[in-house]
Amino acid sequence: MIEVFKTKNIGFCFGVKRAIKMVIKEAESNDKIYTIGPIIHNPQMVGMLAQKGIKPVMDIKNITDGVIVFRTHGIKKEEEDFVKQRGLKYIDATCPFVKKVRRHAIMLKKMGYKVVIVGEKEHPEVKSVLSYLDNDGIVLQKPEIIDFRKIGVVSQTTLEKEYVLDIVKELLKEAKELRFFNTICDNTWIRKQEASNLAQKVDLMIIVGGKNSSNTTKLYETVKKIQPKTYHIETDEDMDKDWFKGIKRVGITGGASTPDFLIDMVERQVKNF
Amino acid sequence: MIEVFKTKNIGFCFGVKRAIKMVIKEAESNDKIYTIGPIIHNPQMVGMLAQKGIKPVMDIKNITDGVIVFRTHGIKKEEEDFVKQRGLKYIDATCPFVKKVRRHAIMLKKMGYKVVIVGEKEHPEVKSVLSYLDNDGIVLQKPEIIDFRKIGVVSQTTLEKEYVLDIVKELLKEAKELRFFNTICDNTWIRKQEASNLAQKVDLMIIVGGKNSSNTTKLYETVKKIQPKTYHIETDEDMDKDWFKGIKRVGITGGASTPDFLIDMVERQVKNF
Repeated sequence: MIEVFKTKNIGFCFGVKRAIKMVIKEAESNDKIYTIGPIIHNPQMVGMLAQKGIKPVMDIKNITDGVIVFRTHGIKKEEEDFVKQRGLKYIDATCPFVKKVRRHAIMLKKMGYKVVIVGEKEHPEVKSVLSYLDNDGIVLQKPEIIDFRKIGVVSQTTLEKEYVLDIVKELLKEAKELRFFNTICDNTWIRKQEASNLAQKVDLMIIVGGKNSSNTTKLYETVKKIQPKTYHIETDEDMDKDWFKGIKRVGITGGASTPDFLIDMVERQVKNF
Repeated sequence: MIEVFKTKNIGFCFGVKRAIKMVIKEAESNDKIYTIGPIIHNPQMVGMLAQKGIKPVMDIKNITDGVIVFRTHGIKKEEEDFVKQRGLKYIDATCPFVKKVRRHAIMLKKMGYKVVIVGEKEHPEVKSVLSYLDNDGIVLQKPEIIDFRKIGVVSQTTLEKEYVLDIVKELLKEAKELRFFNTICDNTWIRKQEASNLAQKVDLMIIVGGKNSSNTTKLYETVKKIQPKTYHIETDEDMDKDWFKGIKRVGITGGASTPDFLIDMVERQVKNF
């Protein structure tokens, strides 16, 4: 019999829970709900919401009716402008922590700082923040010196603190003034701590979450370093019985956008093996 | 015959030159001039000024007439208050770069930051800045984590950048917001660069300057690492003929408060050996 252990912070984080609640409530009275890009980075949850009439669209230009949802990672400024100019109905499900990144970035730009966003160039959160600076900002993915003397720094919410600080340290070398906001989401950090602790006590770790989810992928990378037998899966069907041969203790955790029901299904399946 | 090389930036720095000019001008029309503490950290220059009637006092409480000079490192807020309340005549010879440290520190405090001064607890510049914060600031001499989330950092003007940045990096770990002003004086840095370069090309280095001078002492420490045969002297009389046995090339440099005449005397003496 395999013993299963889960981390304390599991299931949706605050921002995702809030967003899902908002759209489900809206779906009660509306049957045409569009999210600009997937509302969260979890294909299974997005699939379930689609059955309730909540559908991701990549280009909002063709939408003329229904309700538009600003997803957790934030949308681009030009998309927000478009929605408002057209007078379309919308609900803003942007994570409040992501909005804080944006708010700090806008304020820094206004105050004359060259804004640096530490983050992944292609991540929607980073693209969103950058768009609110009218793309007048620098995205850094690795330590680099930039030729500005007054530098303001924010970071993508789901990054590792050490990774972010290494980049800030490099910027300090040439800055005359540097202002840094630690906008890393505490929950991401707590999940990593809990998962790292759990990984030391089990024979195998399962990380449940979207393959397109930045925080889940980073959680996997962190845990994998501690427990080489770590797997990143989206659903119970991704698991292979062979993984569990001779395994007695299994740890399960998930990303910020992983719904409880997927965790439960994985847990049941592991116990069945 | 010993060949002598000097660094390009030698003699008084901008702030010291300015201060000396101010007091000498004042001495033309006034025979009672008091500086609160030595106006600069060079005993020989301070001795020369004393002959012109410019005398350091440690406690201003007994002064009732004459002119009071605020020295290059800055004076304490309570001393400034005392002078102004008494209606005493004064001239402010505080280095403008030191005043910038103070200005940034006061602004940071007003804006709700916990102010950290990276510097030597006993240095008059640091004590001065701290006094203008009503002593509500933290002086750090080594990397330490402090329990404040909004941190504003300035540094003593004469420190090494790497030393300051190591302390800032540690503070970054727990700060939610950190605002850093690089208030290190460029001239200090340039002198170190020039002295380090020169040290690689000579057989022996002489650093001329007050033993109580922070920037001279640090210059000595930096150069000593490159050229083990490095000596910190105040005047030509501190030199020993034996140092120069078998030496062909000698480098000479000085701190920000070392007058040209001391450098010249050292140069002449070295050539005599």
